[in-house]
Amino acid sequence: MAAAFAYISNAQGGGDAAGWRQRLGAALGEAIDLRAWPDIGDPADIAIALAWKPPPGVLARLPNLRLIVSTGMGVDHLLVDPELPAGVPIVRIIDPGLVGQMAEYAIYWLLHHHRDMDAYAAQQRSRQWHEVPFTDTALRRVGVLGLGEIGANTARKIAALGFPTAGWSRSPRRIDGIDCHHGRDGLEDVLRRSDVLVDVLPMTAQTAGLLDARAFARMPRGAFFVNMARGGHVVDRDLLAALDAGHLAGAALDVFHVEPLPQDHPFWSHPKVKVTPHIAGPTNPRTAAESVAENVRRLRTGRPLLNLIDPAAGY
Amino acid sequence: MAAAFAYISNAQGGGDAAGWRQRLGAALGEAIDLRAWPDIGDPADIAIALAWKPPPGVLARLPNLRLIVSTGMGVDHLLVDPELPAGVPIVRIIDPGLVGQMAEYAIYWLLHHHRDMDAYAAQQRSRQWHEVPFTDTALRRVGVLGLGEIGANTARKIAALGFPTAGWSRSPRRIDGIDCHHGRDGLEDVLRRSDVLVDVLPMTAQTAGLLDARAFARMPRGAFFVNMARGGHVVDRDLLAALDAGHLAGAALDVFHVEPLPQDHPFWSHPKVKVTPHIAGPTNPRTAAESVAENVRRLRTGRPLLNLIDPAAGY
Repeated sequence: MAAAFAYISNAQGGGDAAGWRQRLGAALGEAIDLRAWPDIGDPADIAIALAWKPPPGVLARLPNLRLIVSTGMGVDHLLVDPELPAGVPIVRIIDPGLVGQMAEYAIYWLLHHHRDMDAYAAQQRSRQWHEVPFTDTALRRVGVLGLGEIGANTARKIAALGFPTAGWSRSPRRIDGIDCHHGRDGLEDVLRRSDVLVDVLPMTAQTAGLLDARAFARMPRGAFFVNMARGGHVVDRDLLAALDAGHLAGAALDVFHVEPLPQDHPFWSHPKVKVTPHIAGPTNPRTAAESVAENVRRLRTGRPLLNLIDPAAGY
Repeated sequence: MAAAFAYISNAQGGGDAAGWRQRLGAALGEAIDLRAWPDIGDPADIAIALAWKPPPGVLARLPNLRLIVSTGMGVDHLLVDPELPAGVPIVRIIDPGLVGQMAEYAIYWLLHHHRDMDAYAAQQRSRQWHEVPFTDTALRRVGVLGLGEIGANTARKIAALGFPTAGWSRSPRRIDGIDCHHGRDGLEDVLRRSDVLVDVLPMTAQTAGLLDARAFARMPRGAFFVNMARGGHVVDRDLLAALDAGHLAGAALDVFHVEPLPQDHPFWSHPKVKVTPHIAGPTNPRTAAESVAENVRRLRTGRPLLNLIDPAAGY
């Protein structure tokens, strides 16, 4: 019976085969046969695939595949594969290290904007000593779109710093200290009160293009936008127009419609845009291995899998 | 009997006379006669002086002064005045807004270093898409020097983000979740395990020049230093030498021996030094007024003052 693992990726950010072999083996308490694609030997040996942005069609060529593990917390990178094998369960990792790092990314850019760090960097270059008028933390409103594992953790940590924090999710949520909204009307409410907006939504048919000219117009003048979710949520030309009109003060973008971000994309050189190469939440086999190991144990003993994906919902 | 207030400052960062007049008046529930130095009218009218870096000798020329309020949390700016009137009690503000903003400053630079944001900014300039190898948050050790109001709040918030956090204070302290050290040996221990070191100590005879070549040598190679306390703690040439030798990766400095930082100081243009103009914790009359009002009420009714300074100890 097939028993080998494969790590299938040709992109950064989902961990690495050596790290998965070591950490997952340690979590399972055994030496595991984990092969790095494309050097996977006989495809019939592979029972479990750890995958991050796998090339389309690769998973379909594993005849004895019993489980697909997304080594990122989003799964849209799998669902775009037209040959994704139907009937093979897909689970995603829950990586507390990644969750914490996503919150770090949001907090970093929130503070960068809140404390006028671009202005202070410019002052240093010209040796100017001058206090920029500051905004009370209690008056800087933050909105977090998406209240899953990452969004809820991020929102709680932002609120703990004293920022009035709202959140939005498709279905109702309750989180202590967070002003939670849901549904279409709730989205308008959150956009309207977000001096800093952080996007952590999953990529689904409902969230594609959600952040368009209308959404940016709802936000307060001078607002800042952080996208650490998926580039497909944003209508790029609408974001650029909102920045160029001075309606938005800036944006920090970690994710894009096409990655790597094409060399000629205007985001690279826009003075109000910060570009990072999809590094907000790198998967870390050290902190993520236990989540994978638990599902491997469940698969082997026939118990229900955790963090199972519903391909129809998209998350 | 003298009953007027004066706001005495010729530096930024201690609030402003108009803000103090409005917020302190509101906190006391009365319209107050608060005069902005140097336009204070008859010096004999002034009973209470709110002071931030007052010019030496000014306080001595107020014959009916009954209380000096430092509108910054440090008081070294008062104690350097050789004519500081003996026998007039000095209190400092406790400003929860300022305390929160100090933590923001520390967290911002901690995350800036931790997440390699200089490297990513350089990559954006050259349109490079490349993940810089990251360090687990659980493996990035932070040390906070000073565990008063600001240090304890800062350390707690850093620990809540998942960083292993130690703290150091002159006398023993206990703070949940913080590895607390004290005394001379304790300082060595904290320096030795601080990948990021945050200075929040008061300025006293004991802390002057504390961070010298020996102290920097104790820190791990590649460490980052954040000074949001007082420039006098640092031997500047030793810090520059540690940076130039590659022992320290960088420093974010908000405070300096002489402020404004002189135009010809090497910190301004050093590629590893971030300079900000003493803005880490600006006093905010909105959030600080209640602390002043409570002492005004106590003075008027003869009750013991809060947050009283011991000039001999220096804090």
